[in-house]
Parts: sequence; structure tokens; C-alpha cells
Amino acid sequence: MERLYAPYESKVMSAEAAAALVKAGMTVGFSGFTMVGYPKAVPMAIAAAGTAKDLTVLTGASVGQPLDGALVEAGLVAKRFPYQTNKSMRNAINAGTVLYADQHLSHTAAFLNRGSGPKIDVAIIECSAVTAEGLIPAAAVGNSETFVHRADKVIVELNTTLPLELNGMHDIYSPSGLEGGPVPIVDVLDRVGTPYIPCPAEKLAAIVVTDTAGDCPKFKPADADSQAIADHIVEFLKAEVAAGRQPASLSPLQSGVGSVANAVLSGLKRGGFSGLRMFTEVIQNSALELIRDGVIAGASCTSLSLSENAQRELFDNIGFYRDRVVLRPQEVSNFPGLVRRLGLIAMNTPIECDIYGNVNSTHVMGTKIMNGIGGSGDFARNAGLSIFATSSVAKGGLISCIVPMCAHVDHTEHDVQVIVTEQGVADLRWKSPRERAETIIKNCSHPDYRPMLREYYQEALALGGHTPHVLTKALSWHQRYLDTGSMKL
Amino acid sequence: MERLYAPYESKVMSAEAAAALVKAGMTVGFSGFTMVGYPKAVPMAIAAAGTAKDLTVLTGASVGQPLDGALVEAGLVAKRFPYQTNKSMRNAINAGTVLYADQHLSHTAAFLNRGSGPKIDVAIIECSAVTAEGLIPAAAVGNSETFVHRADKVIVELNTTLPLELNGMHDIYSPSGLEGGPVPIVDVLDRVGTPYIPCPAEKLAAIVVTDTAGDCPKFKPADADSQAIADHIVEFLKAEVAAGRQPASLSPLQSGVGSVANAVLSGLKRGGFSGLRMFTEVIQNSALELIRDGVIAGASCTSLSLSENAQRELFDNIGFYRDRVVLRPQEVSNFPGLVRRLGLIAMNTPIECDIYGNVNSTHVMGTKIMNGIGGSGDFARNAGLSIFATSSVAKGGLISCIVPMCAHVDHTEHDVQVIVTEQGVADLRWKSPRERAETIIKNCSHPDYRPMLREYYQEALALGGHTPHVLTKALSWHQRYLDTGSMKL
Repeated sequence: MERLYAPYESKVMSAEAAAALVKAGMTVGFSGFTMVGYPKAVPMAIAAAGTAKDLTVLTGASVGQPLDGALVEAGLVAKRFPYQTNKSMRNAINAGTVLYADQHLSHTAAFLNRGSGPKIDVAIIECSAVTAEGLIPAAAVGNSETFVHRADKVIVELNTTLPLELNGMHDIYSPSGLEGGPVPIVDVLDRVGTPYIPCPAEKLAAIVVTDTAGDCPKFKPADADSQAIADHIVEFLKAEVAAGRQPASLSPLQSGVGSVANAVLSGLKRGGFSGLRMFTEVIQNSALELIRDGVIAGASCTSLSLSENAQRELFDNIGFYRDRVVLRPQEVSNFPGLVRRLGLIAMNTPIECDIYGNVNSTHVMGTKIMNGIGGSGDFARNAGLSIFATSSVAKGGLISCIVPMCAHVDHTEHDVQVIVTEQGVADLRWKSPRERAETIIKNCSHPDYRPMLREYYQEALALGGHTPHVLTKALSWHQRYLDTGSMKL
Repeated sequence: MERLYAPYESKVMSAEAAAALVKAGMTVGFSGFTMVGYPKAVPMAIAAAGTAKDLTVLTGASVGQPLDGALVEAGLVAKRFPYQTNKSMRNAINAGTVLYADQHLSHTAAFLNRGSGPKIDVAIIECSAVTAEGLIPAAAVGNSETFVHRADKVIVELNTTLPLELNGMHDIYSPSGLEGGPVPIVDVLDRVGTPYIPCPAEKLAAIVVTDTAGDCPKFKPADADSQAIADHIVEFLKAEVAAGRQPASLSPLQSGVGSVANAVLSGLKRGGFSGLRMFTEVIQNSALELIRDGVIAGASCTSLSLSENAQRELFDNIGFYRDRVVLRPQEVSNFPGLVRRLGLIAMNTPIECDIYGNVNSTHVMGTKIMNGIGGSGDFARNAGLSIFATSSVAKGGLISCIVPMCAHVDHTEHDVQVIVTEQGVADLRWKSPRERAETIIKNCSHPDYRPMLREYYQEALALGGHTPHVLTKALSWHQRYLDTGSMKL
């Protein structure tokens, strides 16, 4: 197949010329999800020109320094949706100079398609190919279909380092719109849309050909805590199978991003599971390995977020993986109806949990945003089994990840069924708040903080109530950290 | 049609004899939702006997004094799921003598059908008729299908005051189970199941015939605040239609329980809307009126919670309403996939909202439970448009319903799109936390508390962060109320 549909060759131009299409005050929808599939040349050219101020920047999820970093450091970003992880962007958001709304990742496209939110002026999409029918994305879909659909103009960054054989891996389908019928996906590998993003010729304003691969995400190797957490989760899931609450090959898995997620998947292989399926946001290295080894039979996602070596494995054997992986728009990969129907096992990583099972996924000490909620709410709220896993302490023990009261809540007690730390498992299902507090403190908290948590809980119990708290002390651990650099007394 | 399938006449017995089937330590699943369709004679007989201690009591949602009150006052209840509103039950829960887990109302059946939670020993179901095929419920379905399906024994309370013409109004369908296909409902009135709850003859252990109608719910007339809130919501929805974000007859409506909900629906009629549809948990008086008047063309719900007069209107014209109302299991009426697909307008009532748009629906001053989250999370999390409406103050002004930080969070900032009080509307869509705070304080807070909120926010802003807070003062309003009986300084 061809890289570029020949009649479109006249649309090829330099990154600088394409960047000039983006004017001050515009809303730009960029492709990209978990550092994969985002354009680089055009945003860097926009930043270098420096004239397109007050931009509203939308992406799928996190994108790299050549996009978020370059634009915000050039002072061009006014608003940012729906998720970010870039250091400069985070600092601007916490300083209040960039206005950021932290949305569920399945919401953005749905809201745009209902007519809510900004009008998309330009969509800038990294592609592996442009055919007569439409755009073939990179190894991530994100919100690209919606951005192209709603944009006045589309700029394509055609990346010649991407294999043409990505064509056929995507399944582009939009469940948005008023009162649509059911999404006809039953198995994780079902394809219900087109392998390309439809894009009318008259919208396609510019094609910029690039040959820069871009940086791959890097993953920390699993540390002892991640390993212990993974072992606990694997034992817990084995017990669920033994109790008849899970089939032998488990309900489809959703697994968050990071080293804990990687360790859990590797642990499932060691634990002897097979025939697994994933219905998740992101496929990372360990999942790719399990697909290669036949442990995972099929996976649905919106991004293949892989280290350099793993990406080479994918690209060198793309025919094999194309039969076993479907790349979907994030509105579909995270669709609440499918999450509920498939009875997903959702596994995500919090910043902190409180003794009653509420979870903070976004705000350090309640006020400073780390990244955003991402897809965790799409999955946890609607899953068949919702697990949150974290080390019991952070910053070398100065922060307890189990606190009396979360300083910000992203997942409520109603949506958190199991909490796991390296210390153990708290199964919160069908437990009252008092039972939950006892279980979480006993099984999950770090021994350094356990007596302090017990003391808080006893003092709260004396005041009574369904969910006992000492309001004057509920957030005192966070304040102590701000004052002294440690939550310890 | 017949009230009781003749071969089952041998199963008829007294309430006392049926009650004797319930033993200490058992788990009992009762029919009933929002004070409708719950058994009365058998639970009162269980309470009178006083021997069945340590019961685990499940219902659909709220039930009356003859059930929750009688059992808890007799000291027979150890655990309670998933929702309650009874004063004695609430007191026992807040004292910690009854263990209560506050679940999303769509979750309970789904969890039970996945094998999580207690084994149901006995189901006790109020019915309007028992046919050869199964049980015809009263004017509420709740979790009855799941309880009957999973119970060892079923006790029917056959209430002869209920019209036989309820037969045909119910649509019994279970979306539970691992990896089911799509729920084939597209229009709110679609019927996809059976008009009866299947119940094998061998499970049916007792039939108790009663002729007690039971108390109907009472509704307060709309006060000035409810009226003002309703007017704001109607104006807001008209503007949504004008902006092309809603069709002229609106997306299907979900409306919570209470006088605000009643006032909003009446307001929609006065506002000239027609062809409305509801996909909701509960139909109250005002919705029934709008169905009668042709303003609402069709409604899906799990309970018809009506005053005595409105219930008479329903029963006297049941053929008319049976064509326009479908009564579903709560797992279907509240199914997240349908809520998302239908793009619902969800309208619910909080206890308090904070300046960043988080909502507390359950806990007074953070510790004492009022009722429970009910279906508000099923709807708000997955709706196309999620509105929370409350008076700006409670207890005659001693409590501000807009606070610096919610003392308990049931709906996070990510799930709350619009807040309405009698003061005005805060449209939070696509707004950053700082923009939200300014909008909520300006448009929604009570003038008595507005300067205090501004002062808190300014002090928080000076400390910085994406979501500015003064942790030492964030919960101080609640503590002041506990100390002085007022949130005012």
C-alpha cells in the first residue's frame, strides 16, 4: 500500500507553512495518547513562530515535550483538556496560568459531539498513511476521529518511520450522538467501524512529511513494592476464580499505566493464567509480551505505549499483533456501557486512599494536580471488580498513602471495591465504613503509620456516625506534610 | 385474569406461619422501592415473633416503617443494603449497631449475580398476582427479580388491594452475567423481557394474602426555593435547545425524588415543552400528571411513587398508563450503559456542594448518614448532562449548602456539570477549578455566605495550586456548625 494518496501530494508543505494555519485564539485538537501518536514538527513550528497565543489545546491524553512542553514554554496555551503529564504544563496549571479541566477520558469526545465545549478550529493528527478513504493513525487513536470530524481544517503529520502495516489495526467508530443504539461490541476483538478516520479532501489543509520517530516512553523496572502488590493481586484473583466469582481466564482486564500495572500482568503469567483478554486504555510492554506468549488472547485499547525495544517487536511482527490487538477511539476503549457489560476487572493506581475507601487520583496534598483522572473513572465506576493498588508510603516513607481522609476525592467509596498495597489486600465489598476502616488499617497501611491511623479512627469512633471522622484532624496529616515535610508526628 | 394460580392455593398460609420460615442469621431480600411495593404483613410478623435475630436485610431502596422500622426496632437487623430512609434504621446505622453499605442502586443485583455478597436465603415479594408463569409485582420492581432468582425460598405477599391490570406494565430483564451482549433497549418504552418474574413452583414456599393498602408517600408542596430552582432549570434547558445542544423535546429525563424534582417537571410543562421522555428511577406525582396531559410521551422507571390521590388516578386509568410507562428492575432502570447511550439529562439533589463542584449526597457534617447515594451516581456519572439542584441554605439559613470543601464526596468534580440553587445556575462544563469557584460563589451561594466563601477562596488562591484550599480551614464550617449550631461566623 501507499504512504500518501497521490492526488494529495499537492497538499504537502513544510511544518512552518502548516503551522501558519494556526492563529491566535484558536482551538486545536491534537492526536496523541500516553506519549504515542502525537504530532511533533507542527507544534514545534507553532512554538517557534510564537504568534499563535491564547490557544485552547485538546489531545487524547498525555503527549510529549515537543507538543505540551514546547507550546506552554512559548507562552501560547490558555486552556488545556482533558489530560496531561508534562512538567511545564503541570507547573503552569498549578500556577493558574493555564486553565485545565480534568475530564474523564471517555467524556471529551462525547461532550464535543453533543455540542458542548469549544469549536475545534484545526485538528493536527500524526498518521502512518493517508489513503483515498481517510487517515491511518499511528499506534494510538485517542480523540482523533472526533477532532477530524469536528474541525474546520485538518493538518496531517505523515510520519514515515511508522510501518504501513498499521493499516488494519484500528477500528474507528463513534458511539456519540443522541440516543444511539447499542455499541455492537461483544468480544474485545470485535471490529464495528472502519480501519481509517474519514476525512473529506476539502478539510485536509496540509500534509507535513516527517521522519522523526520521537521518544518512546520509558518504564521503571518493577521494584519490590510493585512486585509484592502484583503478587497480592494475583493471589486475590486466584481466590476469586476458586470461589466461582471469576471464570478461569478472568473477565477482561483493564490495567492502568506504570510499573505496578506491568508487574501485575507479568504476575498473571507466572500465576498460570491463560486465555486472558484485555479491554483497556493502554497496552504497555508487559501486555505485549503476554500477547506474544499467547497468555493474552486478545486486547482492545486506544494506545500502544511501548518502550523502544517493545515498539520494535511490535513493528517487526505487526501482522501477528494486528490479529490480536484492536486500536479504538478512547470514547470506545473507555465506554462505560462496555465496561459494565464486559464485567471488567479494573486495576488503577491512586495517589492516596483513605480509611473508608475513597481514592484521590489527581491532587498532591489536595491542591496541586499531578496529572489527571485519565480513564480511571471510566473504568472503576462501571467495572465488575474495581481494584486500586499503591505502595503504602511514598517519598521514602514521609507520606502515607493511606490517610484519615483524602484531601481530594476522584473515586468515591461506592466505586472502590478492593485496595491493595505491598502490605496486603483490603476487600471492601459489602462492608460498612467501620468494617472498611478496620480492614484497610490492618491489611494495607504501613506499620510506621498504622498506630497513628488506629488512634485517629478510635478518636473518630468516639464521636460516632456512619463514617466517623474528627473534622479538626481529618486533613491534619496533609497539613503536617506541608509544614514539616513529613506526615509523621 | 386471576389473582392466584389455582394450583398454588395450597401454599396460602398466615403471615405468622410464613414468618416462621425466616430464621436467625438469614439473608432476606425484600421487594420495595421508594415506599412502594414492599411487604408489610410478613416483616411485621417476623418482628412480632422476635426470634430471627442477626438478619441481613436487602431491599430495592427505601421501604416503610412496617418493614425497616419494625425489624430494626425489634433488634433483628445486623446488616442492611443498599438504601434506606427510615428514622430508626438511620439511627441504628449512625450508632454503628446496624452495618450498612451504601451502594449504587444499579450495583446490588449486578454484584449478587456475579457471586459477590451474601447468599439470599429467602425472598419476600409483594405481588399483585401470581400466575402459572410467575410473579406479577406491585407498582415497583426494585431488585425483586434478582432476589427471587437467587433465593432458596420465596414468600409472596399477595395484596388484593392492587389492581390486576398491573399485569403487563412490568418488563423483567436481567443484564447481569459475564460478558452479556448489548441491552437491546433503544427507546424508553422498549420491552425486552417478560411481564412477570419467573419463579419455579418448588421455590414458592408461602403465599400470604393481605388486603392492606399501606401508606402512600406524602410530598411537600413546592416552596418558593423549589419553584425558583425549577424556573432556573427550565430556562437553562431552553437555552440548551436554542444553542442546538438539546433537541426540542430534550434528551430523556432522569429526575430524583422530592419537591424540587416535582417542581422541575411542572415547570417544563409551563415552559411549553412537549413530547418529553423519562428514563428514570422513580415516577412521582408531577410526572404522572404530565403523562396524563400528554407532555410526557413515555417513561421508564422502577417505581411509581405516588400520593394517595395520584395512585387512585393511576389505578383507575391503568390501561392508559400501561401504554406509557414501563416498570423495570432497578439494574435496568439505572443501567450505566443505557444512561450514557440515551444521553440522559440527570437531575439530582445534593446535601451540599463545594466551590469546586464536588457533591455530598449522603453525609450530614461528613459523618452522619442521611439516606444513601441511591441512583444518583448511576445517573450523574454517565449522563449526557448532569445537574445538581438544592436550596443554597438549609435549617433556616444556619447551614450553607455551598461550602469550601465537601465533608464527604459522593459525586466528584468530574461528574457534576451544572449546579443550580434558588440564587442561579453555575454551568461548570469545560471550566477549570478556579473558574468553577468563581461561578459557583457568584451564581449559586446565598448572599449571607457569599462574602465568607469569597474570603476563603482568596486565602486559598494565595496558597496556589490547581484546586486551591486552606487545609486548616477547609472543613471549619462544618466544625463550627457542630460547635455552635450555625455555619455563620
